[in-house]
Amino acid sequence: MVTRYKITLAYDGTNFAGFQRQPHQRTVEQALTKAVNKMAKDPAEPIVVYGAGRTDAGVHAFGQVVHFDLPTEIKPEGVRRGLNSLLPTDLLVKKVERVPLDFHARYDTVGKRYWYRAYQNEFVDPFKRHYTGHFKFTADIKRIQQAIPDLIGKHDFTTFVASGSQAHDHVREIYSAKAWALPDGEIQFEFCGSGFLYNQVRIMVAVLMEIGQGRREVDCIPGLLAAKNREQARGTAPASGLYMKKVYYDQAELQSDLNTY
Amino acid sequence: MVTRYKITLAYDGTNFAGFQRQPHQRTVEQALTKAVNKMAKDPAEPIVVYGAGRTDAGVHAFGQVVHFDLPTEIKPEGVRRGLNSLLPTDLLVKKVERVPLDFHARYDTVGKRYWYRAYQNEFVDPFKRHYTGHFKFTADIKRIQQAIPDLIGKHDFTTFVASGSQAHDHVREIYSAKAWALPDGEIQFEFCGSGFLYNQVRIMVAVLMEIGQGRREVDCIPGLLAAKNREQARGTAPASGLYMKKVYYDQAELQSDLNTY
Repeated sequence: MVTRYKITLAYDGTNFAGFQRQPHQRTVEQALTKAVNKMAKDPAEPIVVYGAGRTDAGVHAFGQVVHFDLPTEIKPEGVRRGLNSLLPTDLLVKKVERVPLDFHARYDTVGKRYWYRAYQNEFVDPFKRHYTGHFKFTADIKRIQQAIPDLIGKHDFTTFVASGSQAHDHVREIYSAKAWALPDGEIQFEFCGSGFLYNQVRIMVAVLMEIGQGRREVDCIPGLLAAKNREQARGTAPASGLYMKKVYYDQAELQSDLNTY
Repeated sequence: MVTRYKITLAYDGTNFAGFQRQPHQRTVEQALTKAVNKMAKDPAEPIVVYGAGRTDAGVHAFGQVVHFDLPTEIKPEGVRRGLNSLLPTDLLVKKVERVPLDFHARYDTVGKRYWYRAYQNEFVDPFKRHYTGHFKFTADIKRIQQAIPDLIGKHDFTTFVASGSQAHDHVREIYSAKAWALPDGEIQFEFCGSGFLYNQVRIMVAVLMEIGQGRREVDCIPGLLAAKNREQARGTAPASGLYMKKVYYDQAELQSDLNTY
């Protein structure tokens, strides 16, 4: 009896060439597909895994979601332990749930949450180099906090999409966007929205850091959105600071998180 | 005019084969020596660097100390920026000071402080795998806290020294030894002492974790010390959880830290 599983993944993206399978590259999809098929004793028709979203090389995840079907029923706890015994140590299955056969990790999402860590210093900190984006020039958190609400709402994010995007429609809705500073000067960002375009979070962070550094006006975002022109944003914050934190499939959970955060 | 510099180093030990220079290996000493000589325009007589202590492969540092001489005087801030521009990103010079020509990073120490992070879970966390020691079985922090004071004081630590040690005298003094638990179950240790033998901290942590897991008695430490026999301790906690936190050259600073921590 075919059974569908939804799994929640954490990974350190440092040594992966991103999520999506690519020839001759070590990717999350490839490592996971291999483990799932090995756990299922390599069936004649290989099992395919479907991720909620792609992440680029170096991007991390606490809450990437993937679904796949197994030809026989295995208890979720058995799937979790079986996969974790087979997976490399930079990839961890945190949670396994049985879901109806019409559940789809990519098409059923109602929201996503991303976290970004920007470390500011002349030189890189050895313990932060893979886990933050490094910025040489200091940004003023107050300027960033003043500007960031202009990203909230439904907008055409053409200015904030990388050229490799395959999306035709660039309208997305951002539900919440926040920035705060840690005592050591690290600036953290969190964005929750309906979905994000290719590199959108990293481009938004780059623009916000430039605002913080005084290289752009605090009120520049409405004009950037109206321009619908990627040339006006240019920068992309480093992949190493980005974390896919949570994928939502339930409106009530999304609303609850939006009320809490 | 020959000038002596004392530098404080941080490094992520993950990709280093330890501190000490070794043929065909990437070590901290080798990377630093190369950068120092390059900064000094590769003098005919190569500059030698002297570290406060060796760290093994995978062991990290926030406060390793090294001294070396430059044939000409350069401002400390220039040395810091010059070296950091030349060093790989997993190695950072945090501080540079001019010191008298009789200062020695290794022989002038009056104390050292080490930190250890023990992560307890069935499977490794992707973000902790290089930065903690992984323990599959849960330890009771209360048992560890009950046992740890027995390590404090002047003792012959023969039971707690690895076989590769070149020290003849195994008597060392531990000034403070503490353990505490984080909300996610990680247990952290901090040890401050006159000096530590080869693998001593990792062997002490292994014994303490076994006490916490109920595999040894809470009051076993005095007997282990009295036995003066490495066979009785056996285990060595993983290198990835160990951090060289601070090296002391000043009794007043050491006392002040011991009163504060």
